[in-house]
Amino acid sequence: MLLHTLYLVAIVAEAMTAALAAGRRSMDWVGVCLLGAVTALGGGSVRDVLFGHHPLSWVSHPEYLVITAGAALMTIAVARIMHRLRSVFLVLDAIGLVVFTVIGCNVALDLGLPTVDVIVSGMITGCVGGVLRDVLCNDVPLLFRSELYASVSVVAGGLYVGGLSAGLPHDLVTAGAMAAGLVLRLLAIVRGWNMPKFVYAEDLH
Amino acid sequence: MLLHTLYLVAIVAEAMTAALAAGRRSMDWVGVCLLGAVTALGGGSVRDVLFGHHPLSWVSHPEYLVITAGAALMTIAVARIMHRLRSVFLVLDAIGLVVFTVIGCNVALDLGLPTVDVIVSGMITGCVGGVLRDVLCNDVPLLFRSELYASVSVVAGGLYVGGLSAGLPHDLVTAGAMAAGLVLRLLAIVRGWNMPKFVYAEDLH
Amino acid sequence: MLLHTLYLVAIVAEAMTAALAAGRRSMDWVGVCLLGAVTALGGGSVRDVLFGHHPLSWVSHPEYLVITAGAALMTIAVARIMHRLRSVFLVLDAIGLVVFTVIGCNVALDLGLPTVDVIVSGMITGCVGGVLRDVLCNDVPLLFRSELYASVSVVAGGLYVGGLSAGLPHDLVTAGAMAAGLVLRLLAIVRGWNMPKFVYAEDLH
Repeated sequence: MLLHTLYLVAIVAEAMTAALAAGRRSMDWVGVCLLGAVTALGGGSVRDVLFGHHPLSWVSHPEYLVITAGAALMTIAVARIMHRLRSVFLVLDAIGLVVFTVIGCNVALDLGLPTVDVIVSGMITGCVGGVLRDVLCNDVPLLFRSELYASVSVVAGGLYVGGLSAGLPHDLVTAGAMAAGLVLRLLAIVRGWNMPKFVYAEDLH
Repeated sequence: MLLHTLYLVAIVAEAMTAALAAGRRSMDWVGVCLLGAVTALGGGSVRDVLFGHHPLSWVSHPEYLVITAGAALMTIAVARIMHRLRSVFLVLDAIGLVVFTVIGCNVALDLGLPTVDVIVSGMITGCVGGVLRDVLCNDVPLLFRSELYASVSVVAGGLYVGGLSAGLPHDLVTAGAMAAGLVLRLLAIVRGWNMPKFVYAEDLH
Repeated sequence: MLLHTLYLVAIVAEAMTAALAAGRRSMDWVGVCLLGAVTALGGGSVRDVLFGHHPLSWVSHPEYLVITAGAALMTIAVARIMHRLRSVFLVLDAIGLVVFTVIGCNVALDLGLPTVDVIVSGMITGCVGGVLRDVLCNDVPLLFRSELYASVSVVAGGLYVGGLSAGLPHDLVTAGAMAAGLVLRLLAIVRGWNMPKFVYAEDLH
């Protein structure tokens, strides 16, 4: 229940931040809606397509399409005050990341997949929406360039899988993995933690 | 029958315009063929993958691959006279949009999906090929930036679904929805109608 | 057996060259791992998704994810000597191309698909990983712009399918098709063979 509520909050938040990215590229209202829906629902869709897990969530719940496209459209009206809410949205995005991660892990666990796949499923669910957004905006995906994001998803997923296989109560493990991921992500933002970069300029051929 | 003939005309036209986009980026002949086939068949493929609707049309009809790659290749020979045919291709592209839309709606109806999914299925079929083309050409998708295109698909799909559920004869509904979409698209081109843009320059963080 | 060993060598080599591409764009370590895994495993994944052929190889063999991400990460340590190994990697990449092609053809043959699909399956398996790498690096895919690459895959796949349907022994056909593809690819590199380009500058509208 709580996880589902948090999921709805997360897809709305992801759609709204994607709408701002669309606005930075002067997309039209259709582009704003599409980019919002793709960003919010793309991670779960790619996961389901890769695992052959049909029907996709938005296919059986088309209201998710309406909600995300609507949230993106609504963002146009409230864009002027969005920058004041920037920290709110960073927190919502971090919540989205851990919620998507746990949901993605659950899908793979239900499919009986091995541990590595479970963690990868969480990461795909949490991160691929943003990759699609960046590709459609013609950017190198942020995920590949900066900040602890995929790593947070891997840590949260690892704690979740580890806790469950250690036989701890499901609710406790869910809350613990999500809290740990959330704290790590917010600390990374506040402290400016980054993964080390790999700079290769050797173009001597 | 007529729908199938129009489908063949449409994939040829889409492959040929994609070939010109390839030529603008000085791609080689292989790139021209690939971009032609991906653009013409990509919308239906993405739809089928998302809905788990196998086999894909070009898998059971590999002649579609040959036709689209061949049409793209042939474009190289006739490129010099293509700009004189520009309005012909704009009309063919508009026909393609409404034909793809109706075919996409039919696939979703056959799968028994809810109305929102049916309209989205039409839109994916009609529009995603061009998005793949633009992503592979390293552009922000035109679909997100300008003109009535996805909107035309939504209108045509909505009329189609609405007409069918109102119990009108199938052929009449097909013809009506396609004609309405076609007129809307051509009017949008002639009159220069655009969706309003969302411009967000607030990078004050 | 040999084919499987060559497959493992090929995915390691693809992951390592993708890691260098990541380094040229100053991606962080996470980006390096992700780009390595996506490039090495992406072609087979797209093929399996398009053909509805589940589970994907890395889903049932998650060690492939570990191997490719690990190889990409290891590349960071050895990047300084990589340019001395450039010709080794060009050969490994060419081996990868023909190995992926034959594996892709086999998947389609096992699914009982028509000949055109079998050759296309080989080409998708051999080439799409690099396309995903280039899209994620925000480049126009190399595949579309230069060199004999997809063409080599089509030739190798065509020889493989032709040889099998001529009733020649399976091992002979595999070795012959791979050797022919390898020689063609290496000759293309050494002699600088390219497909002709299609240059279309007619923007007179």
